[in-house]
Amino acid sequence: MRAATIRLVQANTANKASRFVARIDAASLPAGFAVASTNAGIKQAISPTPIPPSSKPDLALISSVVPASVAGTFTTNAFRAAPVEHSLDILRRSAAPRAEGVLVNSGCANAVTGEQGIKNTQLLVDSAKELLGRSGDLLMLSTGVIGVQLPSQAMLSALPKLVPGSNTPEAWSEVARAFMTTDTFPKLRARSFLLGNRECKIAAISKGAGMIHPHMTSPGLHATMLGIFATDAPIAPKALQECLDAAVRVSFNCISVDGDMSTNDTVLALANGQAKTVDGGEIIAPGTEINETNHPALLDRFREELTSLCLEMAHLIVRDGEGATKFIEVRVRGAPTFDAARTIGASISTSALVKTALHGADANWGRILCAAGYASTPNDWQIDPMRVSVSFSSSAGSLTALVDGTPQQVDEDLAAKILAEEDIVLDIDLRGGTRATGPVT
Amino acid sequence: MRAATIRLVQANTANKASRFVARIDAASLPAGFAVASTNAGIKQAISPTPIPPSSKPDLALISSVVPASVAGTFTTNAFRAAPVEHSLDILRRSAAPRAEGVLVNSGCANAVTGEQGIKNTQLLVDSAKELLGRSGDLLMLSTGVIGVQLPSQAMLSALPKLVPGSNTPEAWSEVARAFMTTDTFPKLRARSFLLGNRECKIAAISKGAGMIHPHMTSPGLHATMLGIFATDAPIAPKALQECLDAAVRVSFNCISVDGDMSTNDTVLALANGQAKTVDGGEIIAPGTEINETNHPALLDRFREELTSLCLEMAHLIVRDGEGATKFIEVRVRGAPTFDAARTIGASISTSALVKTALHGADANWGRILCAAGYASTPNDWQIDPMRVSVSFSSSAGSLTALVDGTPQQVDEDLAAKILAEEDIVLDIDLRGGTRATGPVT
Repeated sequence: MRAATIRLVQANTANKASRFVARIDAASLPAGFAVASTNAGIKQAISPTPIPPSSKPDLALISSVVPASVAGTFTTNAFRAAPVEHSLDILRRSAAPRAEGVLVNSGCANAVTGEQGIKNTQLLVDSAKELLGRSGDLLMLSTGVIGVQLPSQAMLSALPKLVPGSNTPEAWSEVARAFMTTDTFPKLRARSFLLGNRECKIAAISKGAGMIHPHMTSPGLHATMLGIFATDAPIAPKALQECLDAAVRVSFNCISVDGDMSTNDTVLALANGQAKTVDGGEIIAPGTEINETNHPALLDRFREELTSLCLEMAHLIVRDGEGATKFIEVRVRGAPTFDAARTIGASISTSALVKTALHGADANWGRILCAAGYASTPNDWQIDPMRVSVSFSSSAGSLTALVDGTPQQVDEDLAAKILAEEDIVLDIDLRGGTRATGPVT
Repeated sequence: MRAATIRLVQANTANKASRFVARIDAASLPAGFAVASTNAGIKQAISPTPIPPSSKPDLALISSVVPASVAGTFTTNAFRAAPVEHSLDILRRSAAPRAEGVLVNSGCANAVTGEQGIKNTQLLVDSAKELLGRSGDLLMLSTGVIGVQLPSQAMLSALPKLVPGSNTPEAWSEVARAFMTTDTFPKLRARSFLLGNRECKIAAISKGAGMIHPHMTSPGLHATMLGIFATDAPIAPKALQECLDAAVRVSFNCISVDGDMSTNDTVLALANGQAKTVDGGEIIAPGTEINETNHPALLDRFREELTSLCLEMAHLIVRDGEGATKFIEVRVRGAPTFDAARTIGASISTSALVKTALHGADANWGRILCAAGYASTPNDWQIDPMRVSVSFSSSAGSLTALVDGTPQQVDEDLAAKILAEEDIVLDIDLRGGTRATGPVT
């Protein structure tokens, strides 16, 4: 039985937008991408009652100068939206999928919209491709209200403003704003790293404030949070998918705001290989795309960077969670598998009684154990109550509430101070389970 | 593929105690039971800070004049409390378990209390048996705070006041009060019915206001809701367990207040066969206990009465849910199995976004579909979005929001009126599933 550790991050930090908006350096932006955004009046077009016009962008296009390797993870909700079906289809059709870029809209999710929803997606994607003068596939991301058709005429009219686009911090920042719905701040980050003899960059955008409890899988596996990672690293499609799966599993798939998994959750990665060559490092031959066979160590390095950036982007979603006041990290240790740890962590992070206890700064570890105890764990494994330990910590200190199933004396004043902080860590150690008495069967 | 219908009742009706307390008629009480309750000062004994004494009973004993057939369903939480382990053990030891009665306390759950918790349960049960002068088994039910040892000395001192007990509406009503924790009213019902030539009665008590999302099973299958059903019907133990399993599955296991399943949830049934003989009806020979072989039609009749009463007792728990303002009935139709329907209904009833929409009287059917869409359904079955219909109703009217996956024009004024009511029905028809495109694999 191996032990897994999971950090499951739950809701709750709001009105702190200014602390979490980063300035993007032009030198950190990936080469070979062009981006643009505009206001197409989507919310205004679909509102049953008149609402005032807005200048906030709601339509954006991210394109690559050459067809890019593409990978994606998608919601496992049965009511997958039309743009999800569209993007999934592109990734399923080829063992080595490539795409010209991604069309994005907010204000309307194009979910539960039937055949018309699929047609509208196709119409917009085809028009954007024509404007770009490109014949490859174009992915699409939508977020907003469910059950309403896209205002395709308004969107078609606005599309020409998205071409050709540019590759500046200002343009990327406006694109990040185009992703926003109830988000209070745009979520954009960019970073540089060396991959052998190539100086690579990744720009990342995420969004999501409500309906956040992603559980995505790739077409080979399965969040309305949206995420996009655009890199100029030369990564082969299959290797890109494998890296994205690994990164999403421990980042986006481990956050929760309200416990509801959306119909539109999608994370996409595009890698166009346009990173410039520098002196030194493992040489990547021109035209070569990194995979697990030709440059395994470099692929590991890329996976680490992508995972680290996915975690940062996922945490920004939690910081901006609707109504969120705290940022809770749930660490589950000593579970038999990562998935079991994730399930137990998710059970704790979605528990209404745990949320109310933490909001009230009450170190009610009984509620934490209770939520852990009803999580669905593997059939051949069970929590052993006599092996469980629970502790709380924050910048105000730490305290241990339970050791090996035995309740400890808790300093209530210290507990209140610890839990009054915005950032709190709950640590649950299961020490491997399995109870001696076995399940009730 | 057979269709299943489930009514999953969710939280939310408070401060209405006076509407839900029933007057009990002495003629409806089961023969051959003696009950009593007292205040043992349990909360006062375990409180870290001084709290004023109370006259509310917190310790009760329900006993039968002869050893009764006994059946039970128990929480599936991994942190089963000591009294749950005790009662489970009695039911596991025999293929035809019998018990003298049930000892009950509120104020302390005796959960996560290790070996000492087990010892305290045994000590109290043994003392109560000695006072009763009986050698058979005695079950125990506890509810209250988690992680604190029972104040066994205070309880032992109070036990003599529980013997011999009486069988009056007043005594039963005080016993129901002894079950209460954050409950705002005692939950006691009694009813009479003919079973062949026997005039049978059942008295039922339930409790539970918080940590309510039971999923119980019997020792052969698995709520802190507590429930007890005491009947003078002559039912064999195995038949009683089968009837209780069937009844709990469609009642207690289909309610949710806060979505959290307790460490102590237990429903017990005792049948002592002391019902008096009347003229007419199918003759049950003296000393005979009804089972599925000797009197199948009468067993069906008993199961119906028990199921109906379980539903009534389960609904009382929802009416008294902590902070509850509404009583929501979720009907899921056209699922492949009852369990799939229950899972989908539970996903809807526990969704924070569905709860907030209903609390805000917003007919946001997108949130309902979203919650249905992420429920874990059988691997070989999926919701077909194009077959799903959704409607809302209450005493103010009804409206259909979605038909076969197609959004309908919704009269927002009517929607607001429907959803302003306390009692609301959500109807989701899945028309059998299964989507043509299959899962994302």
